[in-house]
Amino acid sequence: MNKKGNTVFFKNAPCVTSFAAVCGSKESAGIIGGYADITLQDDMYGESTYEKAECKMLSTAISIAIEKGGYTESDIDLLLSGDLLNQIISASFAARDFNFPFLGVYSACSTMSESMLLGAMMVNAGYVQKIVAATGSHFASAERQYRYPLELGCTRPPQSQWTVTGAGGCVISNEKRGIKIVNGTMGKVCDYGVTDVNNMGAAMAPAAADTIMQHFKDTDTCADDYDLILTGDLGALGSRILKDLTWEKGYDISEKHVDCGEIIYKVIEKEFQGGSGAGCSATVLNSYVFTKMQSGAYRRVLFAATGALLSTVSSGQGESIPCISHAVQLEV
Amino acid sequence: MNKKGNTVFFKNAPCVTSFAAVCGSKESAGIIGGYADITLQDDMYGESTYEKAECKMLSTAISIAIEKGGYTESDIDLLLSGDLLNQIISASFAARDFNFPFLGVYSACSTMSESMLLGAMMVNAGYVQKIVAATGSHFASAERQYRYPLELGCTRPPQSQWTVTGAGGCVISNEKRGIKIVNGTMGKVCDYGVTDVNNMGAAMAPAAADTIMQHFKDTDTCADDYDLILTGDLGALGSRILKDLTWEKGYDISEKHVDCGEIIYKVIEKEFQGGSGAGCSATVLNSYVFTKMQSGAYRRVLFAATGALLSTVSSGQGESIPCISHAVQLEV
Repeated sequence: MNKKGNTVFFKNAPCVTSFAAVCGSKESAGIIGGYADITLQDDMYGESTYEKAECKMLSTAISIAIEKGGYTESDIDLLLSGDLLNQIISASFAARDFNFPFLGVYSACSTMSESMLLGAMMVNAGYVQKIVAATGSHFASAERQYRYPLELGCTRPPQSQWTVTGAGGCVISNEKRGIKIVNGTMGKVCDYGVTDVNNMGAAMAPAAADTIMQHFKDTDTCADDYDLILTGDLGALGSRILKDLTWEKGYDISEKHVDCGEIIYKVIEKEFQGGSGAGCSATVLNSYVFTKMQSGAYRRVLFAATGALLSTVSSGQGESIPCISHAVQLEV
Repeated sequence: MNKKGNTVFFKNAPCVTSFAAVCGSKESAGIIGGYADITLQDDMYGESTYEKAECKMLSTAISIAIEKGGYTESDIDLLLSGDLLNQIISASFAARDFNFPFLGVYSACSTMSESMLLGAMMVNAGYVQKIVAATGSHFASAERQYRYPLELGCTRPPQSQWTVTGAGGCVISNEKRGIKIVNGTMGKVCDYGVTDVNNMGAAMAPAAADTIMQHFKDTDTCADDYDLILTGDLGALGSRILKDLTWEKGYDISEKHVDCGEIIYKVIEKEFQGGSGAGCSATVLNSYVFTKMQSGAYRRVLFAATGALLSTVSSGQGESIPCISHAVQLEV
């Protein structure tokens, strides 16, 4: 067996050979601005709707990742993608732009790590040679679908996060170069009963804690073995809750843990808890983090994106928020 | 390589060792009534909302499939599931009922075959021993989300289909018993420019034709090699279009092709083109078809469910309907 606990081990170590990120104007003012391949001046990206702009960002990130790796469309066996819009239309419509198969996935803001986990499984097993894993989100399409019309100018509560406008994707290949995917931990749904849809960090932190601790157990490692333990978009509050939850169980990750949502914006106070959305961890990973790994600044990273599996209907019906986190271990 | 064209071959032949289906009252009057494990008298299933009823059907189908196979929850490594509701809440909330990992997938009404394809890949590679692949839908929750409030009593056009109330799931295992999954063909997005959201059959038929013909090519087979070529929910009209499209390319599937949507209801005229929804192929496959395979009536089946990857937003913005079909080849 190539599995221990909930962690699958990749003895052929599939590699991230290429990556790309497209980000919005607000995002480009922060840490990823100097690393993203395209930084938009106008978040409409020349399209007539927010949804079409979101789809175009995703499609562009996929194209650039393919091109940067020295590949053409015919080299790619498969696209693994999903997004936050109803029926994952950004991913499905982006897939229409390419002549290779598409498998749709959905894991809310942990879609990037789920796609990478599945892609690494398939490349490692020899089913495919090269896949693209990608996702994204758009502030305005997410606000329209999940919250209020922007024109209303609603006040945001202090525990809220700001949906990232951006998309990121990478090529996972059977070639022996780039950033290795050593193993991946499949997450379980965790629900601690949080019902506040404005407090995603608190809802998702238990799922991140569960997956990270399961990963430590399955791989016989601890926080000290990693240069970085990167979560998706817990934000500032959720990140503190994660540190507390893991500390209570005997794991001190405080020195190594960084949350993409917490670091993505320059002036964190203005966006309260920071960034969120599938594009949050996708852009940070596929620009800043992978670049730093290529340069050797980080040699071993645990990437555990987190997703809140709610909908406006489930919240409206009084349900709490089930959350999940899938993780992949990356090494150079 | 274990792949030719877009088809992945499973040399260890993972097996469907157990299956289960739950269906609504209308569905139980048709072909699957005598084969489903639970036939509901009341489609609310004792719940307060349609969405909760849909989730309960899915969760129940998963539980029964596990139990019928002689397994307990601790034997299962993973759930692969998705559904038609926004943010696949039926699958995510059903996953909350079980203590094993969950990977969310979305492929509209081809979710059953996508889940089986991914599950077979993972079992065949030795990453996991037993997974559950499952999906479902509910007429009333789909009408509410995609179309009109039921209370409006809107007239349905003659090219429309009726969303199936039902859920189905199966256990895919590394044991050598049951129904073998021999290979799987990954679908590409096909869009012939159909914009009529009431005519899903016409929109999806090209995707089914593409995947079925790709499968024939990759596996060096033709329609005569199968006892049954089963599509998801093209309905009566879509089924005829599929036969035409494949015939034009030199493949005569007319003797072997059956569409789950076309056969699910007893009096087809009343439901116009027949059934649709992720639960359509899931219930027909996981009750009638698998039972017939177990008895030897069908020995080789190509299951190619089809999905229309639209949303109410994409249609509202004038987009056409991108469609997809994933296929798995089943044998006893």
